[in-house]
Parts: sequence; C-alpha cells; structure tokens
Amino acid sequence: MSNQDLEEGDSFTPRLDAGGLIGAIVTDAVSGEVLMFAYMNATALERTMTSGLATFYSRSRNALWVKGETSGDFLRVVEIRTDCDQDMLWLRVRPEGKGACHTGRRSCFYRRLEPCPGGGVRLAMVDEEPANSRS
Amino acid sequence: MSNQDLEEGDSFTPRLDAGGLIGAIVTDAVSGEVLMFAYMNATALERTMTSGLATFYSRSRNALWVKGETSGDFLRVVEIRTDCDQDMLWLRVRPEGKGACHTGRRSCFYRRLEPCPGGGVRLAMVDEEPANSRS
Repeated sequence: MSNQDLEEGDSFTPRLDAGGLIGAIVTDAVSGEVLMFAYMNATALERTMTSGLATFYSRSRNALWVKGETSGDFLRVVEIRTDCDQDMLWLRVRPEGKGACHTGRRSCFYRRLEPCPGGGVRLAMVDEEPANSRS
Repeated sequence: MSNQDLEEGDSFTPRLDAGGLIGAIVTDAVSGEVLMFAYMNATALERTMTSGLATFYSRSRNALWVKGETSGDFLRVVEIRTDCDQDMLWLRVRPEGKGACHTGRRSCFYRRLEPCPGGGVRLAMVDEEPANSRS
C-alpha cells in the first residue's frame, strides 16, 4: 500500500506492532479530557465495534478486557479514529460509571509535571477529587 | 517503589520501555482534540520542559526531533501530565503553526472508523479541511 493510500484512502489497514497490538488513546467525548491509554488486538477492536463498549487487550493478563466488566465502569464508544499512518487509535467515549482509572478517578492523568526550584521534576495533583468522592 | 508511591506520590519516576522511550499523547489545550502521538526519551522530555516546545524522539531517524523545527509548526507546551503507573505522558499544547500533522492538517486523527454494511471497516474523513486551506 502506498503512503498516499495509507494516509488519504478509506481502507483501514491498522499497523499492529510485533505483538499484534495497537495503542488506543481514550478521551471523554464531551470534555476532551484524556482518560486512559491501553492496547487493543484485532479481536478487541472488533468487539469494541460490535458491542459499543471499549474492549482492550491486557498485556499483563494476556487476555481480552472489557473495560468495566468487573467495576461496572464501562466506557461507551462514541467514535473511533485512526491517525495518518494508521498505527494508533483514538476512542472518544462516554463513561457510564465513575470513570476510567483503577484508583477511582475519572482520568488516569491526575498529576502534572512541575519543575523543582533546585532542579528535577515533581508531580502535583491536578485539581480533581476522586470521582467517587465528588459532590 | 511501592504501587502507592507510584500512583499517589509526588516522585516522577517515568517507566521508560526497553528502548528508553515513553509515549506522549498530544492534545490541543483549548479544544481538547488529540493532535498526535509520539515518543520521548529522557533527553526529549528534559528539552521539552526547559524549552517549552514539544520535543520528541524519532524512532525512524534515531534522533531528537523538535516538532516544527523544519516546518515552523511548533507546539507550545501548556501542561504535561503522567498517568497512574507513570508509563505514558499527556502534553496539552498550543499549536504555533498550522497544526501537528505532516499532511498539513491540524490533527493526525482526521479519519473515523465506520462499519461497512457488508462487514468490515472503512475510513471516513472527519469534517475538517486541511489547516492550510481553511478560511
């Protein structure tokens, strides 16, 4: 497939990595906030498209993983996009539970990098309470 | 480091992969749109923090890569976050040029996946003109 076809065509030919996986950026379809990042294999992507629920491949458990299957915090998929060279996915979702992070927060990205006065970097919590304690 | 420290602490201990890289999701700080995805090594991250300009590591060229250094389309960093297990970065940026994609579009994610009536998946352009042809 030519670069022109890959970048401008309508054929979906995802560039899976050597392990058969592709990364998936997950954002809140309304707020735009990045909620999480995970991997999919071909089956996870197919299940996501047919069920409408974000389904990933767990590299640690070597198994399909319907997000929310144990917690109830499902992610309803609004749209799936891919990028110019088709080696990454972007899922826009509507969380049906308290969010995406196993810590109980809406997003996994709850800390920002801040330079320290004496050098180095520290992490600071962003202004967000865990979803399950918010009023 | 305990999981508690990794997830709740203020020590930044990025989990680089075997190649010394960490992924970086890049979004528009205003619109929330995902613009691109790229990798950083420790030096790229340090340069990004000191210069304020998104700097990546090109796996194809094996070199540091200041986004925009040839095109002029720099990405000014507003905030950098990391996720719960510190193996991914999220950069919120303000594009200083026409965007992030080498195709001339604002975002690399300009196509959505659509199921075909007869099975399979095709790609459809999202409703966005290339940034350099927008009125």
